[in-house]
Amino acid sequence: MTRQDRLGLSLVVEPGDPRLRNLLLTYEPAEILAAILGRHRLGEIRIPDAWAERGRALDRTAEIAAARAKAAGLRWVTPGDKEWPMALSDLDHVEPLHGATGAPVGLWLRGVGHLAELCEQSVAIVGARECTTYGAECASDLAADCADAGWTVISGAAYGVDGCAHRGAFMMNAPTAGVLACGADLDYPKSHGALIARIAEVGVVISEQAPGEKPLKNRFLSRNRLIAALTQGTVVIEAAERSGSLNTLNWADQLGRTTMALPGPVTSKQSLGVHAAIRAGKAVVVTRGREIIAELSGLGAVAEEQPSLPLTEFDRLPPAARSTLDGLDWAAARTVTEIASTVRLGTREVRAALDLLERRGLVLRAGAEWLLARRADVG
Amino acid sequence: MTRQDRLGLSLVVEPGDPRLRNLLLTYEPAEILAAILGRHRLGEIRIPDAWAERGRALDRTAEIAAARAKAAGLRWVTPGDKEWPMALSDLDHVEPLHGATGAPVGLWLRGVGHLAELCEQSVAIVGARECTTYGAECASDLAADCADAGWTVISGAAYGVDGCAHRGAFMMNAPTAGVLACGADLDYPKSHGALIARIAEVGVVISEQAPGEKPLKNRFLSRNRLIAALTQGTVVIEAAERSGSLNTLNWADQLGRTTMALPGPVTSKQSLGVHAAIRAGKAVVVTRGREIIAELSGLGAVAEEQPSLPLTEFDRLPPAARSTLDGLDWAAARTVTEIASTVRLGTREVRAALDLLERRGLVLRAGAEWLLARRADVG
Repeated sequence: MTRQDRLGLSLVVEPGDPRLRNLLLTYEPAEILAAILGRHRLGEIRIPDAWAERGRALDRTAEIAAARAKAAGLRWVTPGDKEWPMALSDLDHVEPLHGATGAPVGLWLRGVGHLAELCEQSVAIVGARECTTYGAECASDLAADCADAGWTVISGAAYGVDGCAHRGAFMMNAPTAGVLACGADLDYPKSHGALIARIAEVGVVISEQAPGEKPLKNRFLSRNRLIAALTQGTVVIEAAERSGSLNTLNWADQLGRTTMALPGPVTSKQSLGVHAAIRAGKAVVVTRGREIIAELSGLGAVAEEQPSLPLTEFDRLPPAARSTLDGLDWAAARTVTEIASTVRLGTREVRAALDLLERRGLVLRAGAEWLLARRADVG
Repeated sequence: MTRQDRLGLSLVVEPGDPRLRNLLLTYEPAEILAAILGRHRLGEIRIPDAWAERGRALDRTAEIAAARAKAAGLRWVTPGDKEWPMALSDLDHVEPLHGATGAPVGLWLRGVGHLAELCEQSVAIVGARECTTYGAECASDLAADCADAGWTVISGAAYGVDGCAHRGAFMMNAPTAGVLACGADLDYPKSHGALIARIAEVGVVISEQAPGEKPLKNRFLSRNRLIAALTQGTVVIEAAERSGSLNTLNWADQLGRTTMALPGPVTSKQSLGVHAAIRAGKAVVVTRGREIIAELSGLGAVAEEQPSLPLTEFDRLPPAARSTLDGLDWAAARTVTEIASTVRLGTREVRAALDLLERRGLVLRAGAEWLLARRADVG
């Protein structure tokens, strides 16, 4: 049974190992697992020692994983299951980053959410663990806006921006999904236990690591590829120059997802990496939830919101009327000749303009002289 | 004499009038002035009434202008003078914005600076009058950086960002130039009298308006085209949704100059217009003086600074060594088998990696077990 073979592979091979991805492009999971267990040969291909070593302990590790999964209420989903997000297979066609690539052989899930459905309209919001209050506030606001518009917010359940993104979704009573770098039965960081439990209550906690596996450094980097692949786009909020969230952005970029970044004060270290990514053309600037949704919907900046700026009453006046207004004062009445001389129009043009302005209630006639009807500032 | 004819035109026609620009593409200044004064005909072309009216008062306005210029120490420069910046003629080939276009017929200058030389390497730094302390600080810092690198900072001497940009140049004892919307003999805003005097002492104060002319609303908009045209690029720092500095950015864009914008907190109203311009693709993001200079030098984001981020000692290790480090602890010694099992490598790979890490002083051997040499954080 493929689900069991895939489970075996996931216990024997470090998730994200590009060598396994390469084998899976040619061989069935069952064949590869049999080869690892020494019961089959894949042509001339040599099975890595580490896989063979772990293969010899498979029966025991499978028992332990099953016990842990049962205790924590985890389910194992693989391609072919209804809950499997098809988008993950995009990972089979991208180059490794930091030594990881490939779709996961399966995922451990915890929580009430239906993963494939949650991913249908989803956006990753990630950023600095050591974020500023600015980053925290923006993460929570943007996530709330996206959640409110029906988009599932997916993040890494980490300190800082990630946690705030999940909380923004909670605020709207919307489901959210968290992808962990450790087993889906563990809480990392520990003090986010309640947050992770809440994610499971309203959405789903996800990991490709077997139950009980630790959040090793490299696993954060390989985990990031899942966050990028499960979503239609990634937004980075605050990232110092070396930040894991830029790694997620790179994954999103490689996967052809929409890459977005929220700018911040250039004087803040926490926005250095964000601005570098924007300058390098790796992310488009977004400042509000509705801009994120427009980018994800393929509408982009132009269709969504013309920055042609709202017109004032002043802008809608013909040029001569605008100039004439310039020559008028609120405090001192002026003759047509004085006005014409100040603004360099002909007296006939000024008279016509004053008629128009009077009809619009913008100027007052005082005998042969004219006044501004309202006080106005120059400039 | 063309200089005098141009002076006459500047006194009779509102600077930036597109009709004059159009005539100057065909006729000499002397012919146009003669036509305005009723002494000549330009084929079938009708001279606007306002021009003819003002033409009748030309002798007197010229006398007044000359007296004011003398008193304030202004000089009149026109095309053909050594101080004339050739770049201004680009304005003859762009469409009107807010009813203004065209190179000025001449400029009034005040101060020690040589305008053409100052403009050779120059950048406009403009922005909100009602800027925040963030905008003020950034304007002054970026201007100081540009000035220090030999670039003349040109701005509008207004409150807020403009004033801070000039002051940033002062800090580096560098020349700076200010383009006014009123006559070059006047101080606008009044309380910037000392700042404008200082600009004249180290650089040059510029206006296309005749001495004594007031800063009318439209004149700020036509003035902005000069700021854009005199420089190789414009940087906008803080601009609310309807801001004059976005008008300068539009001019720079029309003129094929480099258009740049400094991002800020998305929660700040003063950065709304800036972010809209960036999102509309009207400006590239800059965060530092050296990025501005790189953009102006045509190097752009990529050549100037790869956001490929500095490598740490950890990044330079081969993948197996990095994984092995992940399996080690600072507090508890582990055997090779334990490490291999944790990080899913073969024991042979782990042994080779430990040798390498030991040579680099990153791990310690304790009998048959291994420890991290230094404390490290996960993630």
